[in-house]
Amino acid sequence: MDTKEPLQKLLDYLASDMELCNRLIMDRMQSSVDLVSQLAAHLIVAGGKRLRPLLTLASARLCGYEQLSQGSMPRHVRLATSIEFLHTSTLLHDDVVDESKLRRGADSANVVFGNAASVLGGDFLFARAFQIMTEDGSLDVMRVISQACATIAEGELLQMTTQNDLSTSIARYYEVIYGKTAALFAASCRVGAIVADSTVKDEEALENYGLNLGMAFQLVDDALDYSAKQEELGKTVGDDFREGKITYPILIAYQKADAEEKKFWERVIESCDQTDQDLEHALSLINKHQALEETLKEAMSFANKACDAIRHFPEGELHSLFEEIARYTVTRHF
Amino acid sequence: MDTKEPLQKLLDYLASDMELCNRLIMDRMQSSVDLVSQLAAHLIVAGGKRLRPLLTLASARLCGYEQLSQGSMPRHVRLATSIEFLHTSTLLHDDVVDESKLRRGADSANVVFGNAASVLGGDFLFARAFQIMTEDGSLDVMRVISQACATIAEGELLQMTTQNDLSTSIARYYEVIYGKTAALFAASCRVGAIVADSTVKDEEALENYGLNLGMAFQLVDDALDYSAKQEELGKTVGDDFREGKITYPILIAYQKADAEEKKFWERVIESCDQTDQDLEHALSLINKHQALEETLKEAMSFANKACDAIRHFPEGELHSLFEEIARYTVTRHF
Repeated sequence: MDTKEPLQKLLDYLASDMELCNRLIMDRMQSSVDLVSQLAAHLIVAGGKRLRPLLTLASARLCGYEQLSQGSMPRHVRLATSIEFLHTSTLLHDDVVDESKLRRGADSANVVFGNAASVLGGDFLFARAFQIMTEDGSLDVMRVISQACATIAEGELLQMTTQNDLSTSIARYYEVIYGKTAALFAASCRVGAIVADSTVKDEEALENYGLNLGMAFQLVDDALDYSAKQEELGKTVGDDFREGKITYPILIAYQKADAEEKKFWERVIESCDQTDQDLEHALSLINKHQALEETLKEAMSFANKACDAIRHFPEGELHSLFEEIARYTVTRHF
Repeated sequence: MDTKEPLQKLLDYLASDMELCNRLIMDRMQSSVDLVSQLAAHLIVAGGKRLRPLLTLASARLCGYEQLSQGSMPRHVRLATSIEFLHTSTLLHDDVVDESKLRRGADSANVVFGNAASVLGGDFLFARAFQIMTEDGSLDVMRVISQACATIAEGELLQMTTQNDLSTSIARYYEVIYGKTAALFAASCRVGAIVADSTVKDEEALENYGLNLGMAFQLVDDALDYSAKQEELGKTVGDDFREGKITYPILIAYQKADAEEKKFWERVIESCDQTDQDLEHALSLINKHQALEETLKEAMSFANKACDAIRHFPEGELHSLFEEIARYTVTRHF
């Protein structure tokens, strides 16, 4: 039995594309302003899975993209770089917005360099991403990406307005995670199809794959915040809880709560009046109502939709990896 | 003698263009997310001169731009809107970066809505600006604007590294104000020339006009921070001083300082060790060494360069207004 993780298999499959992409990321983060280069170095060292650019590279290849001129940087690599810059830009801004202290197990940039540098560093990467897209020259790509960027900001703002509000509907929660996560996954995949000169049907299929993968990904992320597995990833358990963030596990536990439990949730989430013991009690209620299991079930349903979206693509190693990654996103940490 | 301000004359000259632009600004700031619309409303009420979009509209007209199809929104209006969004985005982020309390005489957005909403609202406007540019479809425009956006972020980051550092050279100070102000003025003008299908010579001429106008504008702004006129504009005197921001008046006063004065500047600017009386002493030293007069002389030299840059354009009312505005930028408040 092959025990290698599907993400690692995809990285191996696309090793030379990814190597070019990593090189371009390093190259285009440089600036004549030292502080920009320092911020960039911090982010590069912190690493990250580079999942979004990987999706762009993989989608292009799944649609049969072949590099045309051997000399210049292939288009899918350039656009994957641009997408990683946009993603990093949103991370920098999110850490300021959430007043985070950790990112990928290390001090976050706002802790090391301050809020000001994180805001402006994010702005720089955002602008650089559009410079790279302009160099590539596809208006279709820019339409998809600029739309996604507007949706991301709207999703984050919507999340702020749902914070501490237990009357948030599941539909509203899905709107939030579509904006904060799935929209960029969808755009990352669609851009890959666009550079491969695919049909609109294939573009939309990959966009749907990315969208559903992103929804699954965020649901799992929201479940992990209440899971002991979280600590193994270098993150603290209960961050969302302490912020009063409305996520799927909370909505389920609140739906199923009796009168006394409802009072508990209203005190800790709506009034943000928490003591040290409250997280433990919250975890026991989440456990009692199987809220994490329901969250993961929901995530798996999105993962299956992701696989369905690309069903019509010819069978092969890459196609199988797309399917494995969608399901592994849900099963990985549980 | 005509006493109407040149900026008002230009607004009158371009009244119908500007009306379309204001309407489009209102229209494209809307979002399905309430918080976005509220932020937008706050910014629209706060108003502002809309100087940058005005430059785009005026530059297009100076280059002979004629609206082609009567039905759709003219290109120069769309791009002017996009530039106002980018400018507003940088204001939102600057207020977070500077921890400002006031903007245009009213509470700034970070005070009313918090840092998080200001960061994300800025991101939304940035994305929306690129959406509008994509709809317009000119890669030339996007190249100019995305380059300007990267330069703005670099300029702001460079400014952070010069803060409290009296060894900053005048050249480095110019680099900062080019980034934080002149780059977008330059791009605003160049974009106007691009939509008018101008020659590269005319594009560059208008870019140079904007660049030099922007340098003059920022020098005057930096002088105003130490001028009693500042209070009439609803801003407090000495904001830059209290932050230890390195601006032209400070660099001149420090250059001309005797040993005791140098010690004073080093204490208040480099060590940021200030008492309530220090601003008054700083003002007296700036006055003694005529640092504001020197700053304005420098600003006027940039204003003259702005006029020189467009000298070859045919004479006429609009051309005269460009010249008047450049000089009025310097003389307006003194």
